[in-house]
Amino acid sequence: MDALALQQYLHEHIPLSRAMQVSVLAASVEEVLLAAPLAPNINHRETVFGGSASAVCILAAWSLVQVRLRASETAARLVIQRNLMEYLLPVHGDFTARARVEDEAPWRHFHKVLERRGKARIAVAATQEREGVIAGRLAGTFVAAIR
Amino acid sequence: MDALALQQYLHEHIPLSRAMQVSVLAASVEEVLLAAPLAPNINHRETVFGGSASAVCILAAWSLVQVRLRASETAARLVIQRNLMEYLLPVHGDFTARARVEDEAPWRHFHKVLERRGKARIAVAATQEREGVIAGRLAGTFVAAIR
Repeated sequence: MDALALQQYLHEHIPLSRAMQVSVLAASVEEVLLAAPLAPNINHRETVFGGSASAVCILAAWSLVQVRLRASETAARLVIQRNLMEYLLPVHGDFTARARVEDEAPWRHFHKVLERRGKARIAVAATQEREGVIAGRLAGTFVAAIR
Repeated sequence: MDALALQQYLHEHIPLSRAMQVSVLAASVEEVLLAAPLAPNINHRETVFGGSASAVCILAAWSLVQVRLRASETAARLVIQRNLMEYLLPVHGDFTARARVEDEAPWRHFHKVLERRGKARIAVAATQEREGVIAGRLAGTFVAAIR
């Protein structure tokens, strides 16, 4: 699943990604990088609305798990269980959301448990960035279940 | 600020609230109740996208603080600092998000600190509901600063 295929998937199945004008800059088993413009995501302070920031970070984290499941040819349902979002700085323009694999160990464990029990949980972090500066941090937990 | 005025404010200043088709069912110093339909907030599983659920809960919690600040004639900037969102059940249709004042004590403290120091923090919870059943829980922290 490359960047264009992921973008088409998101826009087709999650219409809010289209409303937020999310584009996929990169999608691999190492990293998913999304971008979104300010205009559709603006708030009363003329900065990025927190709900948009967390939604785009959720999409980045969810997409990284999805890309990895597809790459391992695992047909699993994938849902979010919980997330913590921290808003560190106001964001005055277009922004990105990045989810990256920092350590393979928890992913190996995730795939092993998923194979064994048909269900597994993985913690995925994402960062919201503006001009190279981290403005927000998401810590999400996702549950995959074999179909 | 009544329900209609709040809805107009949200739709005008936070365009994502319009994209999510959020309507304001109630807005008072006791409670803010928002509603949103499934269609613009659907995901790949044909349930409510987690990013929409948390964004509508953020709007409900933020609006409750905003309504209370206006009612006390306090002109303050209000921003979200962090939130935890738990997704308890998949939501297969239209849903609501409710933020309610359960205890006046932390609010009294919030207003007192805001008046004294020009800046204060308040924790606000919101619940996502579908047909009277709680499907999600948000715990948010907001910071108000006197303009």
